[in-house]
Amino acid sequence: MTETVVTSPNREVRIGFDRPFVIIGERINPTGRKILAEEMARGDYSRVEADAIAQVEAGAHMLDVNAGVPLADEPGMLADIVKLVQSITDVPLSIDSSIVAALEAGLSVYEGKALVNSVTGEEERLESVLPLVKRYGAAVVAISNDETGISENPEVRFAVAKKIVERAADHGIPREDVVVDPLVMPVGAINSAGTQVMRIVRRLREELKVNTTCGASNISFGLPNRNGINSAFLTMAIGAGMTSAITNPLHPEVLQAALGADVMMGHDPACANWLRKYRQAPAGRPERERGNRRRRRA
Amino acid sequence: MTETVVTSPNREVRIGFDRPFVIIGERINPTGRKILAEEMARGDYSRVEADAIAQVEAGAHMLDVNAGVPLADEPGMLADIVKLVQSITDVPLSIDSSIVAALEAGLSVYEGKALVNSVTGEEERLESVLPLVKRYGAAVVAISNDETGISENPEVRFAVAKKIVERAADHGIPREDVVVDPLVMPVGAINSAGTQVMRIVRRLREELKVNTTCGASNISFGLPNRNGINSAFLTMAIGAGMTSAITNPLHPEVLQAALGADVMMGHDPACANWLRKYRQAPAGRPERERGNRRRRRA
Repeated sequence: MTETVVTSPNREVRIGFDRPFVIIGERINPTGRKILAEEMARGDYSRVEADAIAQVEAGAHMLDVNAGVPLADEPGMLADIVKLVQSITDVPLSIDSSIVAALEAGLSVYEGKALVNSVTGEEERLESVLPLVKRYGAAVVAISNDETGISENPEVRFAVAKKIVERAADHGIPREDVVVDPLVMPVGAINSAGTQVMRIVRRLREELKVNTTCGASNISFGLPNRNGINSAFLTMAIGAGMTSAITNPLHPEVLQAALGADVMMGHDPACANWLRKYRQAPAGRPERERGNRRRRRA
Repeated sequence: MTETVVTSPNREVRIGFDRPFVIIGERINPTGRKILAEEMARGDYSRVEADAIAQVEAGAHMLDVNAGVPLADEPGMLADIVKLVQSITDVPLSIDSSIVAALEAGLSVYEGKALVNSVTGEEERLESVLPLVKRYGAAVVAISNDETGISENPEVRFAVAKKIVERAADHGIPREDVVVDPLVMPVGAINSAGTQVMRIVRRLREELKVNTTCGASNISFGLPNRNGINSAFLTMAIGAGMTSAITNPLHPEVLQAALGADVMMGHDPACANWLRKYRQAPAGRPERERGNRRRRRA
């Protein structure tokens, strides 16, 4: 049974086949968030703090942290944000950057065992990121694209994932510390995008015996009622064996899909998590109610 | 590829492995609906009419029709309701009773090829219901319990389903006209209820090559936020290969789960059904909005 263990000073999270689904909060990321990017550029991290706290309160087990502000000193900023978020929450972090120096800066200040987001199958990335992951004793997200880009053929994406897992082993990183992202395509453009992911996730689990993650919201790109599609995707992907996702726990439907899927998989014994979340809330719109109460209190 | 074809004078519905999920509206059933039962007992079928129209408008592909009012003339009433519902909607019906004479009365007035709900693995039921199904050229729901009751062991439930399919064949009813209900247990009481259903559905599809249905809402019995659990269940069951369910399309979450699952399975080409349903609705609560508009118009 493969388990990926990540830690903070006070908390250990296990991503695993027989574990509750792990939600990695996606909000601390300036990509596509203009106001956040501007605030971060001038050193105002108040929204980062608020997003960190809100996501953990909503149910995130981990937080993804990205400082990709254009023209900024990304390594320095990522290190600052890692320290800041670790000072106000106790969940393990996913340190997210496409710049190797930024990943290293984040890892150098991180307390615990982090998840590095990410390495791809590109030769240059493999040989720069994997040594870093090994040196800091971290786990790593492996994204299944390479120099040729993202293949529409799921067989090719599986082969790239396999290559990364093997290369990680060459660097002394065990397969349980590699969490594969099979890459989710928009189902509005590619009708088989959903079934592709289910099939790859099953193979990754049965053949490569690795945990999996994904940026779940890409599935619904271009469609109306995106949360509805995202929920169906998450539920079905968990049914196929997906063990974590980088997603937004502040969307009640997304959180509900993950918690409901845990119940269905038998990963929420006595429905304890489900009961804790929904028992006292009014039927029908429990999360919205709780969210409002929190905002009022804050 | 197994397809169960049911018809009304103007409509044909195909339940099948590569088809969109078929929603059979559950509302026309006095069980547990005291006001409806009282109205039906005194011959007032106005609520039956309203429920029929509302469910079809909401997206039901078929309607289940049950007249199990205590102390009433169930055969006569079921025949009346079948005629009534066929006069105001054009979807095929599931004729639902535990009384064989009522099933026969419903079948005798039904126009088209109906779904008979249901036969069990009990010897007396097999030998009274199956000849009726054959005589009227109908399809039948096969519920996987027998004289010993409902087994908690999914292997036993599979074996009962197999027996019914074989016995149906003895009566000249082909397997494509048998839709198996594997029986859904409450997950609040039996932690493995969800995974049991997924496993049986996969076996029914791969080994027996039959379509499947279920009374979906039993899964959430005793839990809060039942629609959340029902949605997760439906989505995951469709992922495992379930092809229809007797459920309530008036719950927006349930309908959304079924339509979202169709998208994920690649059974909604170009997302046409999804777009038709959600394109013009405000994000987040599309169904409630549409429902209100309909009620106001009515």
